[in-house]
Amino acid sequence: MTTRIYCGTQRIDALDPRDRGLAYGDGVFETILIHRGVPVWWDAHIARLLRGCATLGIVAPILDFLRVEADALIEQCACGVLKIIVTRGVGERGYAPLSNAPPTIVLSLSDAPAPPPRDGLNLRWCDTPLAIQPRLAGLKHLNRLEQVLARAEWNDGDLDEPVFHEGLQCDTTGRVVGATSANLFVLRNERWLTPPVADCGIAGVCRSWILGNITETAEAVVARADVESADAIVLCNAVRGILPVAALGSRRWPPNAQAIALRQSLAEAEPAFGPMHIAQD
Amino acid sequence: MTTRIYCGTQRIDALDPRDRGLAYGDGVFETILIHRGVPVWWDAHIARLLRGCATLGIVAPILDFLRVEADALIEQCACGVLKIIVTRGVGERGYAPLSNAPPTIVLSLSDAPAPPPRDGLNLRWCDTPLAIQPRLAGLKHLNRLEQVLARAEWNDGDLDEPVFHEGLQCDTTGRVVGATSANLFVLRNERWLTPPVADCGIAGVCRSWILGNITETAEAVVARADVESADAIVLCNAVRGILPVAALGSRRWPPNAQAIALRQSLAEAEPAFGPMHIAQD
Repeated sequence: MTTRIYCGTQRIDALDPRDRGLAYGDGVFETILIHRGVPVWWDAHIARLLRGCATLGIVAPILDFLRVEADALIEQCACGVLKIIVTRGVGERGYAPLSNAPPTIVLSLSDAPAPPPRDGLNLRWCDTPLAIQPRLAGLKHLNRLEQVLARAEWNDGDLDEPVFHEGLQCDTTGRVVGATSANLFVLRNERWLTPPVADCGIAGVCRSWILGNITETAEAVVARADVESADAIVLCNAVRGILPVAALGSRRWPPNAQAIALRQSLAEAEPAFGPMHIAQD
Repeated sequence: MTTRIYCGTQRIDALDPRDRGLAYGDGVFETILIHRGVPVWWDAHIARLLRGCATLGIVAPILDFLRVEADALIEQCACGVLKIIVTRGVGERGYAPLSNAPPTIVLSLSDAPAPPPRDGLNLRWCDTPLAIQPRLAGLKHLNRLEQVLARAEWNDGDLDEPVFHEGLQCDTTGRVVGATSANLFVLRNERWLTPPVADCGIAGVCRSWILGNITETAEAVVARADVESADAIVLCNAVRGILPVAALGSRRWPPNAQAIALRQSLAEAEPAFGPMHIAQD
């Protein structure tokens, strides 16, 4: 992984251990797919980053500067993932935010994720619930212990256990929110429904693309039974696109024509999510 | 501020930008009062730190090592605050925790806080609620955006505004939890009541001392009206001890004999919180 760190617009060698990103998770991040050297959905990612900075009262990065530095980092990259972290910067002890401190920016480039399984994902329910917090809901902020605990509920390496590709989380009142690192769409009565993100969850960039570009979609409260009795379900995020789901617990879904059409629509709009993206095994 | 950083037991020069403490707030911390070169309530702080590591599945620091390094850092310190951060260490992209990665440890020493105002604190209610999350409640973890947003509701520097020393937060159901960086005790019917920390809030070290050492105390659900109609209220934390409150909004409290007795009990048990601790202005 290649990393560059900045204080405002000044490149620095190392993070200050007093950075409020470390002390309090006081910042936001984005993970952006790089396809043929170009960041996919850059504008949508930056828009969410700016909303996060505004909501938290963090000085936003200078966007021209950010793009130039990002382009320099990804120059040699055919395919990968660019992560941008923006924190409130360095502070002394105590929660009171220093006004107008230059933000800390961390840019890091890592490999593209492995292609999704051809037959669809195998999901599980997570026990760790997501708390109701309207002040932070929708943002991709750095307070992510709930996702860490949920993802820690299963291991990848246990040979005597089934392989799970993702886990679904409900909020503390039992409503379904999404997967630990992806949003959820549920096909019911020919419509794709996705849980609102006003109380918790992240307003995913791919989720927004689907809601804005596919007609038969809507936000709706989704219960566990709604998921398990759906005609099809898919997960989505900005790095992996739309991922069909094959199983959740004992429920199995065969390939679904509307899910295939949904992926096709995305692939036509964004070549990064074209057929090359599917494992050929 | 003096800082030392470790990967496990190895001293390192700088934080790795891939540290999960930065990426996800994936860690815990303690802030410990140093009095005459000795950390106050060391065992209670370490016990909470270990509970946090166990709950999050983070490898705990080696305690003998931690104490030796802490002692070396505070050797010359008559009075100050030692902060210990322990994170899950360095990880690649993604929420899945690496098992058994050595923890990152950051020790930092800062000045003791200014003495509290002689006449008691002036408090306000914060609008930012605390989310209900039993899986994380009680822990002093690094996901602290709710406290940052609450503390950002007022400024210290506005000359045309009253000075607030702290703000009280309720949970998303309206129950009172505590102050942004202190626990709350409310005197009603001769008993000191403090909100439970099973759903949100931090199990403060000074709070635990009071519950364990003062007879007329109990955990109880506390509503806003219970606070405003209390005979007295105090805040407490492990760095500042017990702090009498003089005002909350339009409510004023005169000095209270039971609050004075409570502070006296603490001062007798822990000389660090003796009368020297009160401003003499």
